[in-house]
Amino acid sequence: MEALQLRLAEFAAARDWQPFHTPKNLATALSVEAAELVEIFQWLTPEQSAAVMEDPETAGRVEDEVADVLAYLLQFCHALGVDAASALAAKIDRNERRFPRADRSGGAAPSNRTEPE
Amino acid sequence: MEALQLRLAEFAAARDWQPFHTPKNLATALSVEAAELVEIFQWLTPEQSAAVMEDPETAGRVEDEVADVLAYLLQFCHALGVDAASALAAKIDRNERRFPRADRSGGAAPSNRTEPE
Amino acid sequence: MEALQLRLAEFAAARDWQPFHTPKNLATALSVEAAELVEIFQWLTPEQSAAVMEDPETAGRVEDEVADVLAYLLQFCHALGVDAASALAAKIDRNERRFPRADRSGGAAPSNRTEPE
Amino acid sequence: MEALQLRLAEFAAARDWQPFHTPKNLATALSVEAAELVEIFQWLTPEQSAAVMEDPETAGRVEDEVADVLAYLLQFCHALGVDAASALAAKIDRNERRFPRADRSGGAAPSNRTEPE
Repeated sequence: MEALQLRLAEFAAARDWQPFHTPKNLATALSVEAAELVEIFQWLTPEQSAAVMEDPETAGRVEDEVADVLAYLLQFCHALGVDAASALAAKIDRNERRFPRADRSGGAAPSNRTEPE
Repeated sequence: MEALQLRLAEFAAARDWQPFHTPKNLATALSVEAAELVEIFQWLTPEQSAAVMEDPETAGRVEDEVADVLAYLLQFCHALGVDAASALAAKIDRNERRFPRADRSGGAAPSNRTEPE
Repeated sequence: MEALQLRLAEFAAARDWQPFHTPKNLATALSVEAAELVEIFQWLTPEQSAAVMEDPETAGRVEDEVADVLAYLLQFCHALGVDAASALAAKIDRNERRFPRADRSGGAAPSNRTEPE
Repeated sequence: MEALQLRLAEFAAARDWQPFHTPKNLATALSVEAAELVEIFQWLTPEQSAAVMEDPETAGRVEDEVADVLAYLLQFCHALGVDAASALAAKIDRNERRFPRADRSGGAAPSNRTEPE
């Protein structure tokens, strides 16, 4: 990840793109690329969405949008000095305390089984 | 990154969340978290956006949203077997050919100096 | 719609919010509110998503996010002098030519039955 | 607005698109179109963003994305029976109580002058 972050920084510097790369613009670009990933799935059923990699053209679009999302996430973190992996590890630690594990004893599913915010 | 991906998979499995984690839903959740990151910046000037980490509370919000974005990106990639780092490396290779480096000889800036789509 | 647009303009002016209301910021705020609407649905099945108005609390959240989306859409259009209703009427005209009607004669579904982009 | 909503419903019915038009999918499509609107502005300065309508091609893109956002907003509201204009009028009423008007007596700007969420 660090090597990719360096390549992205060098790539932007060689093209004089740093003035565009404010944290605000990079966060916005990240959200635009995330929406382009969503666009691939927007009319699919849950089942169809699980099979998108079977079609080579769609698989290529998915990989391309994933690359764009990761690129802007890394550039955003570089611009603000955020360590994304550490931030996520700390968040998982917190969530393991916040969200109890499912009961495996055969009881009913918990009624408040929702996703972390 | 692989260790985080494993922790996230174990975390979701222990809470019976896999049925919710279709690729469509994970891509959507990724875009929602990206928007929550953008929300921090939406009314800031470019200058203010560069200084967000100076305020500890805002810095914590930024790290929290970055963690959420990375969490859903990793889970999305896990669900579909996408290697995000390889996809990004391949994309940088392609973009290095597509976008010429800035002219350092003192000539005018290229008129089409725009960001990669 | 025009009355609402005037109330929103007066509301922002009375609070000195115009400097924040650049077209860029208003478009961004619109996308953030749209993501908050999506958040209500992100883990729901298609069937559950059709029943959200049966729960009064969720119904209230939906109406609240719809109001926010419309508010920023109207303020964005006001800032740039865009007539959203005319733009949409023109777009429907174009799409009626671009996307053929479904064949009602009993034949197979068209293979390219996709949504307008 | 009601006439547009009827045209959109008829348009979708004539193409057998209703099965795709779950509230979840329509909210998602709305957010994707909002992101496409944002994309036009993502690398612009605040000043550049105020001048986008001076370029006819960019103006056409803005109108096109506004049309798409409004189309999905109207279709979403139609699917769930939400009256967007009433929801917004009620929200402005609430916000007029929540957010005090700016002090015009020449005093300092309030330090907490932030946007409604």
